[in-house]
Amino acid sequence: MKKFFYPDHAAIIGVSDKSSNLGKNIIINLMEFGFTGSYEAVGREGGMLFDKPIYPSVLDVPHELDLAMILVRAELVPDVAEMCGQKGIKRLVISTGGFSEYRPERKALEENLLAVCQKYGMRFIGPNCLAVVNMENGLFLPFSPYRSAKWKKGPVSIISQSGGIAMNLSQHLSHHKIGVGKVASIGNKLNVDEVDLLQFFLDDPETKIIYMYLEGLPRARELYEMACAADKPILIHKSNTSDTSHEISHSHTASLASDDTVVEAAFRHAGIIRVQNFEEAIDCIKMLSLPPLKGNRLACMACGGGGSVMAADEAGRNGFTLPAFPRDFLDWLEERGRAKVITVTNPIDYGDLYELDLHIGALERMRQLPGIDAVFYDICYNEEWEKLVLSEGFQMLFDYLSRVNESSEVPVIVRPNLGDLELWESVNRRITAPVFETIQGCFHAMRKVREATQARRISKPIATPTISTAPTIDTILQDAGRQGKTFLDHEGYGILKALNISVVKQQLVQRKDADAVFETNISYYPVALKALGAEMAHKTDVGGVRLNIRDEKELSAAMAAMVADERLTSASGYLVQEMVNEGVEVIVGGKRDPQFGPVVVIGLGGIFVELFADFQLAVAPVDMTTARHMIQSLKGYPLLKGYRGGAPLDIDFLSKIIQRISDLMANFPSIREIDLNPVRVFPQGEGALVIDCKVFL
Amino acid sequence: MKKFFYPDHAAIIGVSDKSSNLGKNIIINLMEFGFTGSYEAVGREGGMLFDKPIYPSVLDVPHELDLAMILVRAELVPDVAEMCGQKGIKRLVISTGGFSEYRPERKALEENLLAVCQKYGMRFIGPNCLAVVNMENGLFLPFSPYRSAKWKKGPVSIISQSGGIAMNLSQHLSHHKIGVGKVASIGNKLNVDEVDLLQFFLDDPETKIIYMYLEGLPRARELYEMACAADKPILIHKSNTSDTSHEISHSHTASLASDDTVVEAAFRHAGIIRVQNFEEAIDCIKMLSLPPLKGNRLACMACGGGGSVMAADEAGRNGFTLPAFPRDFLDWLEERGRAKVITVTNPIDYGDLYELDLHIGALERMRQLPGIDAVFYDICYNEEWEKLVLSEGFQMLFDYLSRVNESSEVPVIVRPNLGDLELWESVNRRITAPVFETIQGCFHAMRKVREATQARRISKPIATPTISTAPTIDTILQDAGRQGKTFLDHEGYGILKALNISVVKQQLVQRKDADAVFETNISYYPVALKALGAEMAHKTDVGGVRLNIRDEKELSAAMAAMVADERLTSASGYLVQEMVNEGVEVIVGGKRDPQFGPVVVIGLGGIFVELFADFQLAVAPVDMTTARHMIQSLKGYPLLKGYRGGAPLDIDFLSKIIQRISDLMANFPSIREIDLNPVRVFPQGEGALVIDCKVFL
Repeated sequence: MKKFFYPDHAAIIGVSDKSSNLGKNIIINLMEFGFTGSYEAVGREGGMLFDKPIYPSVLDVPHELDLAMILVRAELVPDVAEMCGQKGIKRLVISTGGFSEYRPERKALEENLLAVCQKYGMRFIGPNCLAVVNMENGLFLPFSPYRSAKWKKGPVSIISQSGGIAMNLSQHLSHHKIGVGKVASIGNKLNVDEVDLLQFFLDDPETKIIYMYLEGLPRARELYEMACAADKPILIHKSNTSDTSHEISHSHTASLASDDTVVEAAFRHAGIIRVQNFEEAIDCIKMLSLPPLKGNRLACMACGGGGSVMAADEAGRNGFTLPAFPRDFLDWLEERGRAKVITVTNPIDYGDLYELDLHIGALERMRQLPGIDAVFYDICYNEEWEKLVLSEGFQMLFDYLSRVNESSEVPVIVRPNLGDLELWESVNRRITAPVFETIQGCFHAMRKVREATQARRISKPIATPTISTAPTIDTILQDAGRQGKTFLDHEGYGILKALNISVVKQQLVQRKDADAVFETNISYYPVALKALGAEMAHKTDVGGVRLNIRDEKELSAAMAAMVADERLTSASGYLVQEMVNEGVEVIVGGKRDPQFGPVVVIGLGGIFVELFADFQLAVAPVDMTTARHMIQSLKGYPLLKGYRGGAPLDIDFLSKIIQRISDLMANFPSIREIDLNPVRVFPQGEGALVIDCKVFL
Repeated sequence: MKKFFYPDHAAIIGVSDKSSNLGKNIIINLMEFGFTGSYEAVGREGGMLFDKPIYPSVLDVPHELDLAMILVRAELVPDVAEMCGQKGIKRLVISTGGFSEYRPERKALEENLLAVCQKYGMRFIGPNCLAVVNMENGLFLPFSPYRSAKWKKGPVSIISQSGGIAMNLSQHLSHHKIGVGKVASIGNKLNVDEVDLLQFFLDDPETKIIYMYLEGLPRARELYEMACAADKPILIHKSNTSDTSHEISHSHTASLASDDTVVEAAFRHAGIIRVQNFEEAIDCIKMLSLPPLKGNRLACMACGGGGSVMAADEAGRNGFTLPAFPRDFLDWLEERGRAKVITVTNPIDYGDLYELDLHIGALERMRQLPGIDAVFYDICYNEEWEKLVLSEGFQMLFDYLSRVNESSEVPVIVRPNLGDLELWESVNRRITAPVFETIQGCFHAMRKVREATQARRISKPIATPTISTAPTIDTILQDAGRQGKTFLDHEGYGILKALNISVVKQQLVQRKDADAVFETNISYYPVALKALGAEMAHKTDVGGVRLNIRDEKELSAAMAAMVADERLTSASGYLVQEMVNEGVEVIVGGKRDPQFGPVVVIGLGGIFVELFADFQLAVAPVDMTTARHMIQSLKGYPLLKGYRGGAPLDIDFLSKIIQRISDLMANFPSIREIDLNPVRVFPQGEGALVIDCKVFL
């Protein structure tokens, strides 16, 4: 991967000296950004450009090449790639658009291209991509012209499915004094994709923060696992959030785990910072460039009463607290305050007064207060005031703020609170460290970065766990496979038994034995009677469930009615189950997500999960820590913890069920969906019982 | 109120020629902004300023004055006001800070000031306020210096409890080419407050849009009623959202209706646009300056694949749809597209190509497509590109966009999508109409403005409705009042009866008759037995409720146990009620909000309302339309509408209960809280029954 970013000799193919030629812009960019390697222009019409020859073919270049940038018409790309192969070039960047993204029938062209590259062992980025950039060596391949003065070298590397977004974000980051390192716009990613690049950037010592813009996640599982193990912060803008999966969901679990809810959960668990737009990305990256917050206690100093109240509101909204200041600090501040018109609290409202040396003194003292994790400072600036009175004061303050975060573990978070963008810009320029634009963006980023940092501290199991009873489960699944079954009901209970998950007392009655049941000694009335079979997946809807059967006589009648029911003729048998009304209903399930693979779901039963979307999901396998955390994150958690003086329920046991279902999903790819719905959870120490179980293969 | 903004002769009191004098800045501002009235400087030390005398006292000014701006030390303010009174001035703006907001003991100073003003019939804005501004006549009273070039006259008037916020927002609005009309920073609002000013701005023909920044809402009710009747859009930033009310809630209803949830609901119903920060305010005001959207169908054209996907994501998130374009429009566009690399859909991805005449043509056609309510256009701009190739193209586009919304009912919403702020700024300057800064801010504002516009179309009843049985209710309340009761239980059922709200079958047993109950012929077993009395407000917690009593014998035993129970010795009597298990449980309640007065609440029963915060509230009185709308807005509404094939419930009847409770709250101020919890709602046509009722006086 390294040669894509550090070539010694590059060729730009598709260059002419015409005014509308895009390839020429790349040559201009390489000059503008001072590429440290050599580069040659190639174009069929030949000629000269900036006093250097344009070679008619890459084969005409008189020396070796290790990277080619291709920008010729789509139809010509395979031939050009062929010549690159002949020339011995191993890395291509293909900007040309108009492949399968334009017309499906152009798929053939892509296949030609892939074949050529395979033949020569060439790897390529694109086609239909705008850019590869490396600010370290001036490799700058976008085909639109840019000015190097607007670009700053920095710690952020970018992987983007949109060239425009990569370019815009790079310039924004430069403008905000953070800068970019390497940029790859990956286009149709026929060969090199986001996961290849993510691995490279994780290993790249120059890259400290990784940002990705992705419209789909075909290698979501690998991305998730890499992020779980990563030691660098990763931000992802996953767009295209409308649910595009047209697969039909069979189970409850599957219908909850829509594409985007899985993305959301997986990113959250992996500590990936999910952003929805530029502003959020930039604010989070700014926050990541400051010393990290160790807790949620803030000291704030803001401009005017309004600014103070807004800071307090935003702190509250984002889970931060504003501890009261110690008396000696308040005394120090009140003694020095000139106007004596404002009461000192946290936030400090410094009014419209500009005692800037006092501000610096206060900031320095606030950073050192025990129990303060960050200082937020909302600066006012008035240029007329600076001209009239405070000629040196503001520059002194700006110089202080430019350096303040270099030397401390407690960040000072700075936000110029100004009446217009131009003014904000002028202050932004004078403070050489990053400052924030909006108060809500700043606090929101503080929360997001803190949550992701906390999530990254929890280690995630990646390896598939061993199940001691795997052979038993395997036998059940293979038997079902041999019979061509895609749906298990009573066999599912066998799997649960193998997983040591307790199931309600029950007795299976084969269809042929339906008359014989009354000889069976059922000792646990009242019972429920359920019809079994693939068409019974939603058995309640077809009359396949009878509840509260009080004795043998009623059971006999119910069984006879089911046997006679036309809707139930396909029933393979019947299940007699003890009625359990104690405990709280939950649903536990597993699903194979097309992107992330196995996931597990826990939700509060019935209407809670449906109407109030009260469920949590995670990529399997999960350990007990994560399982417990999922339960605690339910809105209905108070119901499980012991509601209104009720006994706390067996959350440990429930966590084990989640963990075992997750292990099952991770071990047995033939299971597509599993629904334990409902599971009734009893008071602590008394476990839980699965009342109904469905498995889809 | 008008004289505050249109004085003929103003005095600025507290001026000297010292460099640190703040009053001088006001004189500078009046010169800078070209105030069309006359103004005089007043300051104890006299002297000259800008070739005009500083009068030692306002009494020395040789002509009449109609407005005084006071900026002297707090202790001196009452005396200065006294002199203003003697001079015959009727309007004061008092900027001085350091009153009760600084030290509670300065309350006395405020009372002196009020007394003086009352004596002379003077009205005043402030103290502790920064500014009054009127861009029409150049009245510009802030004590910090500003440059008039940064201020634009416009349709927005501002009322703010923070001077800093008023000034910043004004400059932002000017910068965004909208501008401000009148500004009032109201400070401690001892005399003139936000409601006085709101009324004035609603009547002011120059004001088209009103923005308010408020930290508290002491006259919330009036503000609500004015907003309900207003014909101008009102935006309010109500900050200070942490719940500061320390009143103890007795009822469930009261604990739901916290300060901020009531604000949220009241604003939503009144069609007030609630904003949380500047950016949101500015985006909404920009949106209000465009032709209003008639529906939610958008045509989008965006820069690159990334921009298109982001536009589609934001449209989806905010409830807008992107209808497919008609074939003839697509043909037109595809024929003219030069590069032939991009498939045309909605959003149109116009790639990185700059065929700007085609853009204008497409925008014009999109506005005229049937079934399109707005056009969103995300422009790319590249200054290098403009220099190299498109010297006139961009200017032509910018000119078009500057005028496009002057002549159409379908707005074209423009957002320059650019790599840095400076570039954004340069495009912002070249398009003379407002453009948006961020894609999410733009779509969010589109939704907010549309929702508020829709809410404003629904008329709200303001007048207190008549209750035909009011005398009966009055008698019950007066009897309770005479007995010093603050809590009603069985008397509460009498009120419900008078309101024609049906209650579960029940029989009251006085304590003294507790033994006699068995002679009563109760025909509706099973029953519940409930202890009555003020200490029984939470009767379940003290053993004051027994359920599922199956016959007379069990009732006898239960009654005896309650009579003997030590926790229940204060019970005044007992209620025997039929057990009702059918229907869905809801809670209906009313509360007297300290700010908004009577409010009503509807929630789904029990844990739904508690754990999932599933409730809706509205300021009383509400009519049937609003009551129905409240029910429909519940997350659990599907449960009421007929869940999983169940029968739809009697929503009309439930709406009537809400409306009647709202009427009750509006008519009887002595009722502090009322809780109908639970109410069981039955299938359509079968009504609902109140199972438990508590009234707090």
